Amino acid sequence: MNLDAAMAAALEQAEKVKGTTYPNPPVGAVILDAHGEIAGVGATEPPGGPHAEVLALRRAGERAAGGTAVVTLEPCNHVGRTPPCVDALLAAGVANVAFAVADPNPVAAGGAARLAASGVHVTPGVCADAVAGGPLREWLHKQRTGMPHVTWKFATSVDGRSAAADGSSQWITSEAARADVHRRRAAADAIVVGTGTVFVDDPALTARRPDGTLAAQQPLRVVVGMREISPDATVLNDDSRTMVIRTRDPREVIQALSDRTDVLVEGGPTLAGAFLRAGVIDRILAYVAPILLGGPISAVDDVGVLSIAQAQRWRFDRTIPLGPDVLLSMIPA
Amino acid sequence: MNLDAAMAAALEQAEKVKGTTYPNPPVGAVILDAHGEIAGVGATEPPGGPHAEVLALRRAGERAAGGTAVVTLEPCNHVGRTPPCVDALLAAGVANVAFAVADPNPVAAGGAARLAASGVHVTPGVCADAVAGGPLREWLHKQRTGMPHVTWKFATSVDGRSAAADGSSQWITSEAARADVHRRRAAADAIVVGTGTVFVDDPALTARRPDGTLAAQQPLRVVVGMREISPDATVLNDDSRTMVIRTRDPREVIQALSDRTDVLVEGGPTLAGAFLRAGVIDRILAYVAPILLGGPISAVDDVGVLSIAQAQRWRFDRTIPLGPDVLLSMIPA
Ligand SMILES: NC(=O)c1ccc[n+]([C@@H]2O[C@H](COP(=O)([O-])OP(=O)(O)OC[C@H]3O[C@@H](n4cnc5c(N)ncnc54)[C@H](OP(=O)(O)O)[C@@H]3O)[C@@H](O)[C@H]2O)c1
Ligand SMILES: NC(=O)c1ccc[n+]([C@@H]2O[C@H](COP(=O)([O-])OP(=O)(O)OC[C@H]3O[C@@H](n4cnc5c(N)ncnc54)[C@H](OP(=O)(O)O)[C@@H]3O)[C@@H](O)[C@H]2O)c1
Repeated sequence: MNLDAAMAAALEQAEKVKGTTYPNPPVGAVILDAHGEIAGVGATEPPGGPHAEVLALRRAGERAAGGTAVVTLEPCNHVGRTPPCVDALLAAGVANVAFAVADPNPVAAGGAARLAASGVHVTPGVCADAVAGGPLREWLHKQRTGMPHVTWKFATSVDGRSAAADGSSQWITSEAARADVHRRRAAADAIVVGTGTVFVDDPALTARRPDGTLAAQQPLRVVVGMREISPDATVLNDDSRTMVIRTRDPREVIQALSDRTDVLVEGGPTLAGAFLRAGVIDRILAYVAPILLGGPISAVDDVGVLSIAQAQRWRFDRTIPLGPDVLLSMIPA
Repeated sequence: MNLDAAMAAALEQAEKVKGTTYPNPPVGAVILDAHGEIAGVGATEPPGGPHAEVLALRRAGERAAGGTAVVTLEPCNHVGRTPPCVDALLAAGVANVAFAVADPNPVAAGGAARLAASGVHVTPGVCADAVAGGPLREWLHKQRTGMPHVTWKFATSVDGRSAAADGSSQWITSEAARADVHRRRAAADAIVVGTGTVFVDDPALTARRPDGTLAAQQPLRVVVGMREISPDATVLNDDSRTMVIRTRDPREVIQALSDRTDVLVEGGPTLAGAFLRAGVIDRILAYVAPILLGGPISAVDDVGVLSIAQAQRWRFDRTIPLGPDVLLSMIPA
């Protein structure tokens, strides 16, 4: 197996543990034996548990000696709650280490240099864009800015509507698209809506499996606005914790969530518009259904743009088919 | 080269001549020699000229003997303005014929049967969906229904707007997307707009090359509505012919174009809504830019849908990146 294919497998491992590793990054690792066969895989365990490399090495056992470790993030070189991964790699006798993204954290960095100094052949930057834009995107943003990464997600018809003229909107997108939203909710640290959505839809804002049961991991639910919501609102039930923030200032919301990494803004249009105008959105996920609705109810109303020259310009970074729908992912241009 | 790869090359040939072969179908052909190497390619010439197979055979010369002819449409078996292609294939001594789509035209059909009866090994259905949904889509529709195939194309921001709040819209989509529109205009038999677009934009509705010069092939320009347009309107210039249809009935428009195959409806929203409500659209091309505009100007207003249960349901058949934009192609679900 070549390095790119092994990194793709490591990336898949990392995706699986997204949302469960906070404050550690979700990392995936694959150990190839000396013949290039997969000997072990691993992903970061919840805080206090072993890192991805250590788990993968444990599973590979003797076969790691003379082999290659393929990791989505540069192996760490510091003693935290667990000993440095570099020590484990050297002890196992791997001959090569390939990683995607260098560790931006000065405390943990230096792993690659120490491995190389110990005679290990090190290959940095393997599939770096896929990892930096994928499982590590939110964590890297947090390392760089100190603030959480904010994703705005919306469901829309191909003509930009979030409901039909009479207000009905269940369901615009397919089961496959909704399952993807629930996977992302389970990986997120917080879900944000405005009071309007709570009044109109009374949503649970939980992450659920396709069979309707609660996912193991639940994000913090956040309701934003000056109006008081009913104590009977479903969003206040015991399925997860809930924070009510009485403000209309998007920056105040982000500030209140500054200890989080991955924040999902689910709308509605008033809140989404306010966040977009404030420039606090780091990614947009548009779940687009191949339907036409027409009529007055748009997925977003006012984004602070008067003329085409002022258009909010983004960049499509991924186009993902989800059953009959398509997910258009956008990042700042 | 295997059959699928050869058919992909034949399909590419066919795409190149789309719009120039009317009333004949745009067909592509590849001749593989006995070793499986490409010996010649061809595509339908304008009416009166040779068919794709004949051109490809001519280019292959001696190398066709014992080889394979790969054609997007079943080779014809009738004497029209040109002799049957089946005769040419037999005379050249090809051992195998592979084609994508069977000829639905009873006059021209029977080619495969005659080839097989003459000892040629025949493989039908190679990449049939790609060809039937691609270069032959409009022609097959015409054969089946007797009416032209109608495509509605629109340019939109990802939030469903066709202009910013102040009406400015140049340009929502990129140069790459606009070049694609001009390629499709050059391949179309007619472009339809409402009088509103003529009054507001005064467009030329010609097919132009990226350098701004006129494409060799120009579609008929069609303006629909009861109001009289100015004799100075650019759409009436000498760059192509123009038909003004004084009606508001989409079916009357299609009827007036019933001798055509490939009709492109370019809007605006009023005309597009009327065509969508009348159910006369066979494909939708949404050129989506990764920008947000918000505001009151939607790409489409009223599609005759009141509640989500009545949504116009389509199916994404292709998602094509065009520079920074994405083209979402939809066909009836
Ligand atoms: N298509 C989708 O993906 C999607 C997603 C979610 C919701 N929706 C739909 O959206 C509809 C609700 O729309 P909505 O716009 O009322 O919901 P909303 O955006 O969730 O809530 C609006 C409320 O947010 C508060 N708010 C917070 N910051 C604000 C700011 N900077 N400016 C103004 N208001 C601010 C205000 O509450 P106070 O008045 O209390 O201050 C405002 O009334 C529902 O029908 C729901 O189904 C659609
Ligand atoms: N985003 C895009 O891809 C795109 C494409 C084209 C145009 N546009 C924009 O669209 C705007 C013009 O909008 P528009 O809606 O006025 O243009 P339009 O749809 O081209 O023209 C509207 C006119 O079409 C006639 N019409 C024909 N059949 C009709 C029917 N069944 N019902 C009602 N009217 C019918 C009417 O003319 P009479 O009153 O004469 O009967 C009506 O006033 C321009 O700003 C242009 O830039 C955008």
